[in-house]
Amino acid sequence: MEQDFIFGKNTIIEALKNSNNRINKILISKNINSDLKVKEIIELAKLNKISFQFVPKEKLQKYNDFNNQGVIAFVAPIKYKSLDVLFDNQKEHYKKSIILDGIEDAHNIGAIIRTAVCAGFDAVILPQHRGMLINSTVEKTSAGAVNNIDIIKVNSLVDAVTKLKDNNFWVIAADAQGNDNYFDVDYKDMNLALIMGAEHAGVSKTLLKQADFIVKIPMYNSFNSLNVSVSSGILIYEIVKQYMQK
Amino acid sequence: MEQDFIFGKNTIIEALKNSNNRINKILISKNINSDLKVKEIIELAKLNKISFQFVPKEKLQKYNDFNNQGVIAFVAPIKYKSLDVLFDNQKEHYKKSIILDGIEDAHNIGAIIRTAVCAGFDAVILPQHRGMLINSTVEKTSAGAVNNIDIIKVNSLVDAVTKLKDNNFWVIAADAQGNDNYFDVDYKDMNLALIMGAEHAGVSKTLLKQADFIVKIPMYNSFNSLNVSVSSGILIYEIVKQYMQK
Repeated sequence: MEQDFIFGKNTIIEALKNSNNRINKILISKNINSDLKVKEIIELAKLNKISFQFVPKEKLQKYNDFNNQGVIAFVAPIKYKSLDVLFDNQKEHYKKSIILDGIEDAHNIGAIIRTAVCAGFDAVILPQHRGMLINSTVEKTSAGAVNNIDIIKVNSLVDAVTKLKDNNFWVIAADAQGNDNYFDVDYKDMNLALIMGAEHAGVSKTLLKQADFIVKIPMYNSFNSLNVSVSSGILIYEIVKQYMQK
Repeated sequence: MEQDFIFGKNTIIEALKNSNNRINKILISKNINSDLKVKEIIELAKLNKISFQFVPKEKLQKYNDFNNQGVIAFVAPIKYKSLDVLFDNQKEHYKKSIILDGIEDAHNIGAIIRTAVCAGFDAVILPQHRGMLINSTVEKTSAGAVNNIDIIKVNSLVDAVTKLKDNNFWVIAADAQGNDNYFDVDYKDMNLALIMGAEHAGVSKTLLKQADFIVKIPMYNSFNSLNVSVSSGILIYEIVKQYMQK
């Protein structure tokens, strides 16, 4: 079985800095100029006793599709968590999580994970069979953020949402036909899970039925189509902003 | 000189629906199945008296990098506007515009234009020599939104910002070291220009000096890096939200 890899200097630096270090080995092309970031990678690798090797550029050729900047790192796969991590230490702070329902685009998933980390969310919840899981492109687009948040994989989103509700979580779905403008809901003092759907299909009907609130982002134009990573950012930051303004 | 083209069924449909029709000719691969969207393209082309042609797939091969879905449209270039469009009819409503300072990634530019249109902004301002102008990828990522908003091209952003200020616009720059959280500024009842910078470099120092406000998006984590299309979305929607809640 081929080992997972990650690419992009920043992504590799983020992974090396993370306490939960997943990197097994780093390959650096002999042909690249050793800039500050490459030096940082080498220093962090030494510090963490991770082996690195200078290789002829041909050895990295098969990864060329990934704009690898002359550096590739082989990694242990992401350790997916179970939903139960959200129910631990609930008394410390209210838990905030985001559910990605059927989102297929690796760049969108990466950008959403990045936003969730910046906003201090606790977890991203992905369905095993609907949409995409974490891969090299998601990890790169997330700028390494996948290492800074719990990534929860579930078999069924319907079951997951049921369990979240049973455990004192409020469930908010985003939908163009929502009842409330997203900024008219009070998100404070609750554990919550925000469901975002795929760009065209939206959140699936079953999940919409389970939701406690369905919120919409108002459009000022008949042109009704925000990119899903942008709409996720708008909703995520409304939620955390309410906490800051509390 | 090779003519400009656009690709993506939705992008072509948006361009056909737009009153300011830029499409000269449409090529459709003989080998694709005629789905509902292809039918819509053909109907709209007939309605608007735009010529379309079924061609062997080889003819579209040179556009294959663009995931063309078997349909390509040749278009007249985007008509860039001058800054003066923002100073017309100022009394009708307050004008809202976004300045992209050195943003190079076509996907980010496209997503930002899409958000600006959804939010009812009046214009997107691009510098002629710093960053990227509108191309096929920007148009595709914008889902055709480039046709629904004034795209202003300027020689110098410094001069443009000076002129905006002389014409009663407030200038707001986004920067991680900003003084105010973005939601603590009152954006109502003003003509405004929001400056967003490139992901790593940020807004250039000269423009920061010109800005009336420098706002930041607070980070809940040392992991400090939102995607620029996401941070633009957060700021753009805070601005329009304040108008809605007025």
